[in-house]
Amino acid sequence: MNRHHPFSLQVRVYYEDTDAGGVVYHSNYVNFMERARTEWLRSFGFSNSGMMKELGTMFVVRALKVDYLKPAMLDDLLSITVQVKDIGRSRLTLLQSVQRDDVLLTEGEVHLVCVTADTFKPVSVPDVLRKQWS
Amino acid sequence: MNRHHPFSLQVRVYYEDTDAGGVVYHSNYVNFMERARTEWLRSFGFSNSGMMKELGTMFVVRALKVDYLKPAMLDDLLSITVQVKDIGRSRLTLLQSVQRDDVLLTEGEVHLVCVTADTFKPVSVPDVLRKQWS
Amino acid sequence: MNRHHPFSLQVRVYYEDTDAGGVVYHSNYVNFMERARTEWLRSFGFSNSGMMKELGTMFVVRALKVDYLKPAMLDDLLSITVQVKDIGRSRLTLLQSVQRDDVLLTEGEVHLVCVTADTFKPVSVPDVLRKQWS
Amino acid sequence: MNRHHPFSLQVRVYYEDTDAGGVVYHSNYVNFMERARTEWLRSFGFSNSGMMKELGTMFVVRALKVDYLKPAMLDDLLSITVQVKDIGRSRLTLLQSVQRDDVLLTEGEVHLVCVTADTFKPVSVPDVLRKQWS
Repeated sequence: MNRHHPFSLQVRVYYEDTDAGGVVYHSNYVNFMERARTEWLRSFGFSNSGMMKELGTMFVVRALKVDYLKPAMLDDLLSITVQVKDIGRSRLTLLQSVQRDDVLLTEGEVHLVCVTADTFKPVSVPDVLRKQWS
Repeated sequence: MNRHHPFSLQVRVYYEDTDAGGVVYHSNYVNFMERARTEWLRSFGFSNSGMMKELGTMFVVRALKVDYLKPAMLDDLLSITVQVKDIGRSRLTLLQSVQRDDVLLTEGEVHLVCVTADTFKPVSVPDVLRKQWS
Repeated sequence: MNRHHPFSLQVRVYYEDTDAGGVVYHSNYVNFMERARTEWLRSFGFSNSGMMKELGTMFVVRALKVDYLKPAMLDDLLSITVQVKDIGRSRLTLLQSVQRDDVLLTEGEVHLVCVTADTFKPVSVPDVLRKQWS
Repeated sequence: MNRHHPFSLQVRVYYEDTDAGGVVYHSNYVNFMERARTEWLRSFGFSNSGMMKELGTMFVVRALKVDYLKPAMLDDLLSITVQVKDIGRSRLTLLQSVQRDDVLLTEGEVHLVCVTADTFKPVSVPDVLRKQWS
């Protein structure tokens, strides 16, 4: 798991993900990206709920940018990737993509902030994670 | 507000509510019904969050039945109704419908239980509400 | 794959599936059930879109009943099952469940009708499927 | 309706919009923005489905940027605004915001492209709309 070999999660497109235009509804790619970030975090030993209980922290989305290049369709099997672009004290920038086979459908850049689970105050990214992401 | 004049909330159908079949996705009618229950509760002076804070209680869905008669489409303006069918100590049964103009599209029956917000233990429906619903 | 060994799909609970009550939002179990039906259909050789293109038919939900027994939580890994209860000419009744390990969380009964993809007229369940479900 | 007085749609936050973090799930602000764009378009005489049928065109999202400043909570009544930033031949850039009372919660910039409803080919923004937006 490093910058050169991005993490990837497979996601199947169901009816719930599509809209009357016949394609995946644009905000659902944002959900797919969050699913992939969750599994990527799990690959480093932390579930969302575990991170809250054990470390008292969580990652929240501070900003995102999405480019829609080609539509995904019902029944598609998609790969959602996650790659660290940059890491600050409490901030983490990820590059994400949605692909069908080798075709790039959507690109995303997501800015996360590590915060305390109770007061949402920014705190340092836990060292155990920073070490693996730097 | 009584059994003979059901409460009604207007809901517009947006792209997010539809699927690739060109109609409203079947579970989204269940969301529409929850929106109407929330506004119906508000018409008696309680928001969901207010009920949690002031009374320490909330309503949770214990069971539901939905009949799909006719599909709703993109841009439809729907009326979602709420009517008390039956009320027990901690249990409340509601009849709900989704209509477009005078056409009945979907019928629902929803069984709610009043529970404590922290431990989810069944408690009596607050008297202030029971009085108005009986 | 028969009545005695129900089909099962694993579904992970993500933030998008939960609500401010801290548990899975009640209509999302209905989505999970639809995902499992889709994969169950695929196990018999038909995608939703393939069935539309090749046979000109689709299954639509005519009615559903859901019992909520215990809540599912963030990060849970759920099993969603599908089992044929009954099959008519154009009608199909399925029993579905949501389980975490061996704990039953939700039970559903879903009535589907096989219809033409263009006019939504009821038609016979395709023989190739009926044979395997009877 | 012009650049100096942005269009605004009121949206209530329901359970379905929130997540286990106790706030509105980040992709749902993107849905709220789409609802506001749809009502904004309607204020110029076009529904989404009407535009498809009458003009054979639709707007699709080509890119979006969202900044999350403060969270929205269950039961909040939000104002979602729409303002034209820039208009090209087939491209339209909108500025959008999510506000609670006078507090800015979320800012968005959405790039739309006007396309044919059947082949998704870029076409000129209909003159009847361009005139009012320029």
